[in-house]
Amino acid sequence: MASKKKLLLIDVDCGTDDAQAIMMAIAAPNVHILGITCVEGNTPLDNVCKNVLRVLQLCNRLDIPVFCGADKPILGEAINASDFHGTDGLGDVPDPTAPGLELIQKEHAVSALNRIVSKHPEQISLVATGPLTNLALAVRMDSTFPKKLKTLYIMGGNMESRGNTTACGEFNFLADPEAAHVVLNEFTCKTYIATWEHSCRSKLPWEWYDQWVKRGTKKSDFIKKIYAHSMQYSRNNEKENKALVAGPGFVSCDAYAMAAAIDESTVTSVIDCAVTVEMCGKFTRGMMVLDLIDSLKKKNKALIMNGCDLEKFKTLMEALIK
Amino acid sequence: MASKKKLLLIDVDCGTDDAQAIMMAIAAPNVHILGITCVEGNTPLDNVCKNVLRVLQLCNRLDIPVFCGADKPILGEAINASDFHGTDGLGDVPDPTAPGLELIQKEHAVSALNRIVSKHPEQISLVATGPLTNLALAVRMDSTFPKKLKTLYIMGGNMESRGNTTACGEFNFLADPEAAHVVLNEFTCKTYIATWEHSCRSKLPWEWYDQWVKRGTKKSDFIKKIYAHSMQYSRNNEKENKALVAGPGFVSCDAYAMAAAIDESTVTSVIDCAVTVEMCGKFTRGMMVLDLIDSLKKKNKALIMNGCDLEKFKTLMEALIK
Amino acid sequence: MASKKKLLLIDVDCGTDDAQAIMMAIAAPNVHILGITCVEGNTPLDNVCKNVLRVLQLCNRLDIPVFCGADKPILGEAINASDFHGTDGLGDVPDPTAPGLELIQKEHAVSALNRIVSKHPEQISLVATGPLTNLALAVRMDSTFPKKLKTLYIMGGNMESRGNTTACGEFNFLADPEAAHVVLNEFTCKTYIATWEHSCRSKLPWEWYDQWVKRGTKKSDFIKKIYAHSMQYSRNNEKENKALVAGPGFVSCDAYAMAAAIDESTVTSVIDCAVTVEMCGKFTRGMMVLDLIDSLKKKNKALIMNGCDLEKFKTLMEALIK
Amino acid sequence: MASKKKLLLIDVDCGTDDAQAIMMAIAAPNVHILGITCVEGNTPLDNVCKNVLRVLQLCNRLDIPVFCGADKPILGEAINASDFHGTDGLGDVPDPTAPGLELIQKEHAVSALNRIVSKHPEQISLVATGPLTNLALAVRMDSTFPKKLKTLYIMGGNMESRGNTTACGEFNFLADPEAAHVVLNEFTCKTYIATWEHSCRSKLPWEWYDQWVKRGTKKSDFIKKIYAHSMQYSRNNEKENKALVAGPGFVSCDAYAMAAAIDESTVTSVIDCAVTVEMCGKFTRGMMVLDLIDSLKKKNKALIMNGCDLEKFKTLMEALIK
Repeated sequence: MASKKKLLLIDVDCGTDDAQAIMMAIAAPNVHILGITCVEGNTPLDNVCKNVLRVLQLCNRLDIPVFCGADKPILGEAINASDFHGTDGLGDVPDPTAPGLELIQKEHAVSALNRIVSKHPEQISLVATGPLTNLALAVRMDSTFPKKLKTLYIMGGNMESRGNTTACGEFNFLADPEAAHVVLNEFTCKTYIATWEHSCRSKLPWEWYDQWVKRGTKKSDFIKKIYAHSMQYSRNNEKENKALVAGPGFVSCDAYAMAAAIDESTVTSVIDCAVTVEMCGKFTRGMMVLDLIDSLKKKNKALIMNGCDLEKFKTLMEALIK
Repeated sequence: MASKKKLLLIDVDCGTDDAQAIMMAIAAPNVHILGITCVEGNTPLDNVCKNVLRVLQLCNRLDIPVFCGADKPILGEAINASDFHGTDGLGDVPDPTAPGLELIQKEHAVSALNRIVSKHPEQISLVATGPLTNLALAVRMDSTFPKKLKTLYIMGGNMESRGNTTACGEFNFLADPEAAHVVLNEFTCKTYIATWEHSCRSKLPWEWYDQWVKRGTKKSDFIKKIYAHSMQYSRNNEKENKALVAGPGFVSCDAYAMAAAIDESTVTSVIDCAVTVEMCGKFTRGMMVLDLIDSLKKKNKALIMNGCDLEKFKTLMEALIK
Repeated sequence: MASKKKLLLIDVDCGTDDAQAIMMAIAAPNVHILGITCVEGNTPLDNVCKNVLRVLQLCNRLDIPVFCGADKPILGEAINASDFHGTDGLGDVPDPTAPGLELIQKEHAVSALNRIVSKHPEQISLVATGPLTNLALAVRMDSTFPKKLKTLYIMGGNMESRGNTTACGEFNFLADPEAAHVVLNEFTCKTYIATWEHSCRSKLPWEWYDQWVKRGTKKSDFIKKIYAHSMQYSRNNEKENKALVAGPGFVSCDAYAMAAAIDESTVTSVIDCAVTVEMCGKFTRGMMVLDLIDSLKKKNKALIMNGCDLEKFKTLMEALIK
Repeated sequence: MASKKKLLLIDVDCGTDDAQAIMMAIAAPNVHILGITCVEGNTPLDNVCKNVLRVLQLCNRLDIPVFCGADKPILGEAINASDFHGTDGLGDVPDPTAPGLELIQKEHAVSALNRIVSKHPEQISLVATGPLTNLALAVRMDSTFPKKLKTLYIMGGNMESRGNTTACGEFNFLADPEAAHVVLNEFTCKTYIATWEHSCRSKLPWEWYDQWVKRGTKKSDFIKKIYAHSMQYSRNNEKENKALVAGPGFVSCDAYAMAAAIDESTVTSVIDCAVTVEMCGKFTRGMMVLDLIDSLKKKNKALIMNGCDLEKFKTLMEALIK
C-alpha cells in the first residue's frame, strides 16, 4: 500500500507556515513522509527542531523521524524572522507538554537526506520551505543527490524583484543566497518554485481565515494560537503591508509548495525558465533572477509557479485542521 | 504666447523610438522645445547627432538647437543596440540629403543643459530617452541642476526585473548604471519613469501600426522606412520576443515618456516610491530597484508610470505623422 | 623664458600635504603653474578653494588662477578626512586675513582643464593630489583630454592592498573609485602614481620635520601651524599608526607626486604595469589593482613609483619653506 | 610513545607541492598522521585521491587512511591548475603500479574530519594545502569543529594582493573564496597562514633544487620525475614568472605550511591580524584581506607567516627524500 503513496522528505525552518505545511502533508492520504529535516531560518535551529516535534505530537505522528541540520547559512551569518513568527518561531505560546530534543535523530540532516534518497532513487519528492542550506550541503557531500530526487518543491525567491525582507530580497533566499544559488544551478531534477509574489497572489481572504481557525478542533485551535502573533503583525505592520503583493489577506507561503507536492494540479500555470540568484549586488543580494531571455545559456530550467487552483488549495487547508 | 507653452529639453540617443518621441514633441502645439541634447546609447554619438538633424529636417525644425554630449557612459565602456535600431540607429536607410554635423552647436550638451535651465529655473521639463550620462554629468558640473528643473521624464529601467538586454537589465539603464544611480538619487525634482514593463504593457497592436504608417504623409513614410529593420527584428528575433512583456505588438518606448511630458493625463496610474539602481550585481547590474518596503529610508521618491491612457496616447501618435 | 619651464596644472583637495605640494611647485624655478583646480576630498569643496587661496596668498602668488570643480565624487557620496587634516582641512587655525572666494575663477575647473590643455597640447604636466573626480569629468566632457597631456602625476591608490581609510582603501581612490577607474583606464598619457605604500616608505624622520618647521620663515611657521593638528593625530592615533607602512615618521603624501613632476629623477624606481581600481568589492572597494601578471590584457600601463631619492626630495622640501 | 607525537590531519588537493608536504610529514619523526583528506583543486578529485595513494605507496605508508571529500567548491564551479601540475596533477608521468581508488576509505572526508577531531579534541594540528572546501563543510556540518582543533596551518591567500592565478587571486583561495571566507571567519583555533608572497620570498635557489633531486633515492627520483613538468613550466612561462614574487627559484608552497606544523620554529616572524576574503570584487574575488587597521572590528585573528628559517626548512626538505 505504502508503495503507491508519494514519498516525501520535508526540509523546514519551522515557523508558523512551515507548521501548516507539515500538517497539510500529514493530513494528505496519498503521501508518506519519510523524514523531516531542520535548518536554521525563521528561528534558531533548536527552536526549529522543537517546533517540528510539537507539530508531530499534535498530529500523533512522532513516529516520523526528525533530523537536525545546518545551524548557519553557508557563509555563516544568519538572519531570522522573529518579528513575524515570534521569538520561538511559533508565536510565543509556550507548550509545557512539548517533547524534548532527545527525540531528534542522532544522524545529521544532510547525511539523512543523502541516505534516504539513495534508498529510494528517483522516487522522493523533497519539499523545502526554509533557507536551502541543507540541500546545498547535501549536493556538496554527494554530487549525485539531485538526480536521485524525483521532484523538488521550493518555497523561496521572488519573480518580479518584490522583496519581503530587503527591497529585492525574499526571506528564504536572502537568508542563504549561496545555498539558493547552488540549488538552482545544480538540482537538475524537476523543480517547482513557489515565490513570494505567487504566494501573495494566491492569498486567502481574512474572512476565510477567521472561520477556518474557529472549527474547534485541536488542530484549528493550535493554528489559531500560534498564528495570533503573526496575524497581529501582518495586519498592523507597515513594512509587512508594503511588502505584501496584491492586497491584504492570509498568506501561508510554505503551504503552496506543499500543496503542489501533494497535488500537482493545484498549480494551474508555470513559467519554465532558467533561474539563478544574485549573490553580490548592493541592493539585490538574494534576489532570484529569471532568465526569461536566455541570456545565461543555462540548460537547467525551473518551473516557477504562476497560478494556483484556490479551491483545491482550500480543500487541502481544510483537511489539515481536521 | 510662447510663455504659456511647456518648455522642453530633450536628451536622446536617437534610435527609432527617440525619433518618434522628438516628432511627437514637435507636433504638440502646447510645447516649446528649447534644445535637444545627444548622448551615446542606441548608436554611437555621431549617429545620434546626425539622426536628430535628420528628424528636425524632416519636420522643418532645424531651428531647434542640437547639442553633442557624452560619447561614453560614466565608466567608459559603451554598449549599443544596433541589432534593433540598425547600425546607423535609424534602420540603415541612408538619406543623401541629410544635414551635416556642422549644424550641431559648438557648446557641449552638458553646458547647454546647465545654461538653459539656469535661464528658466523651475520651468523646464526634461525628457530623457537615452542613457542618463549627460544628466549625471550636468549635476556633477552644477549641483543645483536638478532643483532648477520643473519635471523630469525618463524612459529607462524596469519595475519587475524584466530585462531586454541582460536577464535583469533594460538597455538605457544598463548602458550607464552609474549615471542612472546618480540621477535617481540626486534629481529631487518631480520625476516620472517609463519603464520597460510599462512600455510593453502599453504597446499598440501591429494592426494599428500597419495602418498608422500607411497614411502616405512624408512623416509616416519616414517612420515606416526607418522602422522596417526594427519591425523585422522585433517580429522574428527569439530573444526580442522573449524580452517583450505581455505579448506581441508595437512598442515605442521613448514615446511614453514624451507623451507624459506633453500631456500628464496620459499617465493613468503611478507607483510613488524610492528607487535606485544596482551597480555591482553579477546578474543584476543596471537593474532598477523599487524600494516598496522603504528599506533604504530614502527621502527622494519617483513616480513609476503604471498605466497609460491608450486613446490619448494614440492621438499623440497620430498627430506626429501629420 | 617661460616657454622653457615645465607647464603645470595642479588638481587638489587642499589639505595639509596638498598645501606643501603647491608650495613646492611655487618654489621650483623650473615650473610654471598654469592653474590650480579644486575638488572635494580631504575637506568640503569650499574649504579646498579657501585653502588654496590662503597658500597662494602666503606665497604672494594670487596671480595663479584657481578654479572650483566637483563638489561630490562621481557617485555622489563624499567622505572626507577631517580627523587628520582638521575640519577646515588646514589644521583648524583660522586666518582672518585669508582671501575670499570671490577670487576663485568663474570658469568651472573641468572646463578650465580642457581649455588649458587644448591651448598647450602635449606640453602640460598635470599633478593630481586629490580624488580624481575632476579628471574623470574632464575626459567625459572631452575624450581628447588625456592625449593632450604630457604627463600625469597622481597621488593615490595602494600597491600592496594597504589601506589608510578602510582595510584595503587609500583615501583618494576610496573617495572616488569610479573616477580613479576612469582615469587609470582612459588616461593614455605617461602616468606616474605615488601610492600610499610608496609615500610611507619614503617618509622623513620626525627629527628632520622638527628642524624643518623651526626655520622661522613665514612659510615654515605656516606649515608648523597648519600641521600641528595632523602631527598630533599621526603620533597618537592607533588606527593612523597601524595604517602607516614601515614605521613612524613624517609622510607628506602629495609632495612625492609633485616632486616627481618637478624633477623626475626623484623617482629612482618604477613598476611599469597595467592598473585598475576595484569598484564592487565588499572589502576592497577603492583598492588599486596592479595587474602584474597581465591577466586583464590592458594595453595602457602606468608607472608605479617604487623608490625615491630622499636627498633630492629633502632639497625640494627645504626649498618650499624659504 | 605515539601520544607524545604531534597528531596531524592533512587536507590536500594533491599536486606536486602537496606531495612534497605529505612526504615531509611522513619523514618527520615527531608527527603522527591520523588521516589525509582529499579535495578538488589543483586537479580533479579522483586524481587527488590517486596521487595521495601514489605518495603513500612510495613511502610505504598505505596504512594512513585516505578520505575523499568535496568534488567541487562551495559554489560549484571548479578551476584547476593543470598547466602547472600537469593533467593528472603529478606531472603526467603515469605509474602503472599505482594503487587503485578502492583503497580510499568509504567515509566522506568531512565526516572523517569531524569524527577524528572529536576523538582527540584540541590535540590535532590540521594542515590544509588545497582549497578550503572540506574545512568549510566540516564547520557547517558541526559548528564545534574549529574549537576542537589545536592549530590550523593553511597554505593559501596573499598578503600584498599579489595573485598567481588572477591579478589579485592566489589559486587555493580563488578556487573557493566562500570556503576561505568561512574558515577565516569561524576557525577560532590558532591559525597560521602561508601566503603566496611568503612562499615566494622563502623560495630556494634552483641550484639547491638541482642537487636535491639528484640524490638518487627512490623519493628524490620520484620528485624529480613528477616535478619536471612544473619546473619546465615555471622556468619558461611568462605569466608564471611575472606572478613569482621576488625573483626566480624553487617554490614548494605547501611545504611551508607543513614545515610550520612540524616545527613551529621554522616560522621566524608573523603578522597577527584579522583577515577575511573578498568574494564580490570584479578584480579582487578570492583575494585575502589583511585588516591591519582593525576596520572590521573582528575578534578572530590569524598569524600570517612573515619569515622562514630557511636552514631549518631545508633540513626538513632534505629529510623528505631520504
